[in-house]
Amino acid sequence: MADTQSKQVHLNSIEALTLAEREPERMCARFAAMHSADAAELLLDCTDLQQRLTLFYLIPDELQGDVLLDLPEGMQEDLLAQLHAEDIGDVVEHLDSDDATDILQAIDRKIADEVMEHLEPDEQREIKPLLTHDEESAGGLMQSELFKVRADWNVERVLRVLRRWGQEIEHLHFIYVVDDEDRLIGIVSLHELLFLEPDQQMDAVARRKFISTTPDQDQEEVARLFDKYALMAIPVLDENGVLVGRITADDIIDVVREEATEDMFHLAALSDQDDLAESVPITAWRRGVWLLVNLGTALLASSVIAQFEHTIATIVALAVLMPIVASMGGIAGTQTLTVIVRGIALGRITFDNAKKVLLKELRVSCFTGVIFALVTGGVSSLWFPQYGWLLGLVIALAMLINLLAAGLAGALIPLSLQRLHIDPALASGTILTTVTDVVGFFAFLGLASLILL
Amino acid sequence: MADTQSKQVHLNSIEALTLAEREPERMCARFAAMHSADAAELLLDCTDLQQRLTLFYLIPDELQGDVLLDLPEGMQEDLLAQLHAEDIGDVVEHLDSDDATDILQAIDRKIADEVMEHLEPDEQREIKPLLTHDEESAGGLMQSELFKVRADWNVERVLRVLRRWGQEIEHLHFIYVVDDEDRLIGIVSLHELLFLEPDQQMDAVARRKFISTTPDQDQEEVARLFDKYALMAIPVLDENGVLVGRITADDIIDVVREEATEDMFHLAALSDQDDLAESVPITAWRRGVWLLVNLGTALLASSVIAQFEHTIATIVALAVLMPIVASMGGIAGTQTLTVIVRGIALGRITFDNAKKVLLKELRVSCFTGVIFALVTGGVSSLWFPQYGWLLGLVIALAMLINLLAAGLAGALIPLSLQRLHIDPALASGTILTTVTDVVGFFAFLGLASLILL
Repeated sequence: MADTQSKQVHLNSIEALTLAEREPERMCARFAAMHSADAAELLLDCTDLQQRLTLFYLIPDELQGDVLLDLPEGMQEDLLAQLHAEDIGDVVEHLDSDDATDILQAIDRKIADEVMEHLEPDEQREIKPLLTHDEESAGGLMQSELFKVRADWNVERVLRVLRRWGQEIEHLHFIYVVDDEDRLIGIVSLHELLFLEPDQQMDAVARRKFISTTPDQDQEEVARLFDKYALMAIPVLDENGVLVGRITADDIIDVVREEATEDMFHLAALSDQDDLAESVPITAWRRGVWLLVNLGTALLASSVIAQFEHTIATIVALAVLMPIVASMGGIAGTQTLTVIVRGIALGRITFDNAKKVLLKELRVSCFTGVIFALVTGGVSSLWFPQYGWLLGLVIALAMLINLLAAGLAGALIPLSLQRLHIDPALASGTILTTVTDVVGFFAFLGLASLILL
Repeated sequence: MADTQSKQVHLNSIEALTLAEREPERMCARFAAMHSADAAELLLDCTDLQQRLTLFYLIPDELQGDVLLDLPEGMQEDLLAQLHAEDIGDVVEHLDSDDATDILQAIDRKIADEVMEHLEPDEQREIKPLLTHDEESAGGLMQSELFKVRADWNVERVLRVLRRWGQEIEHLHFIYVVDDEDRLIGIVSLHELLFLEPDQQMDAVARRKFISTTPDQDQEEVARLFDKYALMAIPVLDENGVLVGRITADDIIDVVREEATEDMFHLAALSDQDDLAESVPITAWRRGVWLLVNLGTALLASSVIAQFEHTIATIVALAVLMPIVASMGGIAGTQTLTVIVRGIALGRITFDNAKKVLLKELRVSCFTGVIFALVTGGVSSLWFPQYGWLLGLVIALAMLINLLAAGLAGALIPLSLQRLHIDPALASGTILTTVTDVVGFFAFLGLASLILL
């Protein structure tokens, strides 16, 4: 990348810490010349909170907030917990309203109130309404800073007011045209504005077809709108159509990554708080909880096998073959589960087409079920000729049953969780493998007991 | 969502098809009033290519390209394969250069050449250089349409030229300032431009600190830059610093989603071409390939068990308990694997810190290994008291070994694939479970043979 900024950061965290101890002023100057994201990377690479604090205190006030926001949530909270309300106030006052809100929501409620008192009245006024929204909603993402004009203003007046008040608004690409009651009636891009005559009225030139969202809309849904309509910014309107904020595309890229990570982690029996930079005991604890859940379900599967001890003692080949049935079910189920979870996240699966999707998955399972029943049955008969073709028949039937169960469970689990307004990725992997293990072992060993004994 | 556009689309694909047959002109008018993304959804919901074509032909030329681009890749290619070069030419000429390139890269080379001949010379000139880049690189994402000005121009001249030539450029938020050889030297946002005096020179006002990328940069890397630096657009520079294109944030949201889906699908033994809208046989075939690979590795694991038939025949409890060791290894390994794969994708794991990450994962595995060795050993001894505490010892040791193997494999597999420039998610799940199954069964049954027999 031929960019000036990243070239300056040929400094790793160890060098930064040494510099911070020996020549704090120089380190402070280095930070001042850095992009917040690069400074955050230095903090990320520190091995503990103490080191992170050493560096953090040397970051200029106006950069500290952005650096905090670039850190993983857990680390952000740990750092904030070490700061006084007054310091946090200094950090927050340099931030846009949406970012300030994120910081205030990451700290203790009582301290947040103290911080608010330190802020200027107009900042308080901007931030207060944002604090009421859920962090993962459009309201939690939006910023109050935007540029709105009245419908009866002409281009000249818009430009005059913009030159006077608009300088500090970041990413100002759109002008929002509102009526007397602040209801959004149209949008004009800065770009379009340049092609208009000074005396043209906003009313006449604003685009009245626009995509908008509401403060309570889930952030995933907002991301879907950005993706679907290739948006660069979206206005947020309350239930009366009053313009209350806007969300820009750069914040949505963050959301899309976050949501994808969350789903991926949930599918892999990981907490979405699992972070590379977290300490070993905390990581071990977070993963251990899920491993314990899995141990429980594995014991359940084992107790199914235990019912057939006598059968296995008679035909040991069953013990050799039984993991195949369970494993194939697990993989096939995970395939379906992942397609469905992702389809829901991308808005491709909705309540309307859920039935169609479920039917398709079942038909795919029939296909693969029949094929792998034949293949596995054949392989098993060849491998253990002493039991004749009946062993092949048993594993073929068990495979068919388990692949059907896998397809059904892989589709039904996330669709049901979604219906119940639970994250469809959460715990669904564990439930699924429990189903495919239990069904797999029970079908295979049960059929063997009936047919072979 | 209180938006005008989605309100108009209270029409499902069945209604659309009926309308298309009975009153094609009315359906055509409906399409003309629709956003391309909504039209694409109607096509997506059709059950086969024939239906899709019926609707597609009724979409106005200027919308057809956008609709195609909103469809999943497979479906897009199927539709394009039915069109003549001339029709594709009509579609392409309404698109921006980056989108036109995507369409041309989705069709047969020979037809693409024919389509190019149908285009205006200046369109050909814009698209030709873009065709040379890989679809998944910055060059494949960028568009040639941008607004560049010379360093010695003043604000007045910039505005004059912009008013004359800039109207058709979508998402024009930044003005690129270049030198005599077209090398980018600075950036001015439209917003900043409004605050300048008419006689100020670009040279003096352009921001010279900016993030840029090169045409051969991987799209995932570009997405990381957008995320890290909260960008709305990025200029693309060739090896000499010459401005060759730009990429806007709305296209990056697409990339981030696509890349996340790809990783998620690869981790779940799915082809990244697996799509909800694909037909049952094609889906079954794509999944079947991966299931066949898994059958191979499951047979390998079974052949390990087969070596211990005699041991199992003597102590049937081993058959009951052995899936627990394998399952815990699989889950723990998947946890590590997912964290590493995602860390690589988000740019959090690089060549520099790979060793540190690997060490952390091993230490976490030691932690969880010891704890679950104790728990599983205890539970097993209580469950099968007839074998005394020795059975507990066997499963505890096997669990410890397998969780360590899981941590090691979960980290090493994706890190090695990454070193070899292979997608770290691809096939790593299958390799991992092979390792944890084989190690799990071998350690458990092998130790049992040594200690219990």
